[in-house]
Amino acid sequence: MRNIRLHICYDGTRYKGWQRLTGTDNTVQGKLEHTLSRILGEKIELSGSGRTDAGAHAVCQVANFHCESEMPCADILSALRRYLPEDIGIDSCQEAAPRFHARLNCTRKTYRYRIWNSERPCVFERRFVYILPEKLDVQKMNAAAAKLLGEHDFSAFCANKKMKKSTIRRIDDIQIFRDGEELVFFFTGNGFLYNMVRIVVGTLLEVGLGKREPDSITALFGAKREQAGPLVPAQGLCLMEVEY
Amino acid sequence: MRNIRLHICYDGTRYKGWQRLTGTDNTVQGKLEHTLSRILGEKIELSGSGRTDAGAHAVCQVANFHCESEMPCADILSALRRYLPEDIGIDSCQEAAPRFHARLNCTRKTYRYRIWNSERPCVFERRFVYILPEKLDVQKMNAAAAKLLGEHDFSAFCANKKMKKSTIRRIDDIQIFRDGEELVFFFTGNGFLYNMVRIVVGTLLEVGLGKREPDSITALFGAKREQAGPLVPAQGLCLMEVEY
Repeated sequence: MRNIRLHICYDGTRYKGWQRLTGTDNTVQGKLEHTLSRILGEKIELSGSGRTDAGAHAVCQVANFHCESEMPCADILSALRRYLPEDIGIDSCQEAAPRFHARLNCTRKTYRYRIWNSERPCVFERRFVYILPEKLDVQKMNAAAAKLLGEHDFSAFCANKKMKKSTIRRIDDIQIFRDGEELVFFFTGNGFLYNMVRIVVGTLLEVGLGKREPDSITALFGAKREQAGPLVPAQGLCLMEVEY
Repeated sequence: MRNIRLHICYDGTRYKGWQRLTGTDNTVQGKLEHTLSRILGEKIELSGSGRTDAGAHAVCQVANFHCESEMPCADILSALRRYLPEDIGIDSCQEAAPRFHARLNCTRKTYRYRIWNSERPCVFERRFVYILPEKLDVQKMNAAAAKLLGEHDFSAFCANKKMKKSTIRRIDDIQIFRDGEELVFFFTGNGFLYNMVRIVVGTLLEVGLGKREPDSITALFGAKREQAGPLVPAQGLCLMEVEY
């Protein structure tokens, strides 16, 4: 069996997230598996580096699949580009090592979250940002973000209340900066819990709005979901990089 | 009568252009006039700086209208922002000099045309670019563009074959540059004929593709439409600035 690795970008606006659901293929994984199965003439199952939420985007999602077909990678790539809808793009399609697994071998991920932090109208980027015109104290947000770095129990930042596995994760880097009308966040870590990035952003926004002090962040480690901030909308979220 | 000036941006994807048509309000002007008339309680007619094509965009269209209402500009602005669809934005709403007319007083306009000039997928910007992955000789295109500068008879670049008025226009500046996967054009001039920017880009692309020599451009002044290049799609076009 060949093992093939894909680098995928998508505008997640009209999808119910990455992960295939039963009874619908209105997911990015479902759409890709369906298209690959037809191209290769065999049933294809994809392993993605991880789920992305309904409405969230990806600049570089990584996935792999096994197949019997001997079709060259370049031909698979051009067939995918021809048959996929215009909101899913394939950056590359290459042979992978036999044991490569997009989810299990992933060591770090980077997510971006974009906020349109301006009174000015947001017409062109509206599908990719969360519109929040209120004034934000970025210095305080950076102070709060610094406290999140390192390995902690992020239970309060996990939307899955019945999470049985460990809620310990490591955040290596958080960048928060202004870019024109936008406030942009980058998060890099060894893994993120269900909705974790969006709840971290919601919590940092409470700090930026003066509703929460930066020092209060450390009290959230190992705490309950209710103690952290709200979930911000998925449309501002984008998976940027997956490291192996 | 008050005279009020608007700065408007729009994603033109789902509109039949700027100019109101009879029997439909699926135009940007029609949508704005309808919304303003309801806000102000009187029939409003807008004068835009000029038409934009069906599917073309604007970062800054300028328009003015007269009204009897005494509603402050700040209130008109916030009502417009509340009631307009999310693909039309208002950057500013201000009192104008009594004789100000957005079309008649316009001295220069700047348009941008974006080409996605790459084999890589274009997922996020797809509504705002023309996808053309072929290799383009930008140096030759710049040489051809230089010949277009100044005052000329641009008859060959006008889609209206029954144009009775002058087809003489002045182009002050053309910039062509790479920006990541894109090739971006900027055109500044005292006015542009119907479809002129899109036909100029189509002609410059023929030069970039090696189908036409830069020196051949001057033979197009005063020539017939058939002698210039093809019309490129409207979705890459955006009105950037109007000067008075």
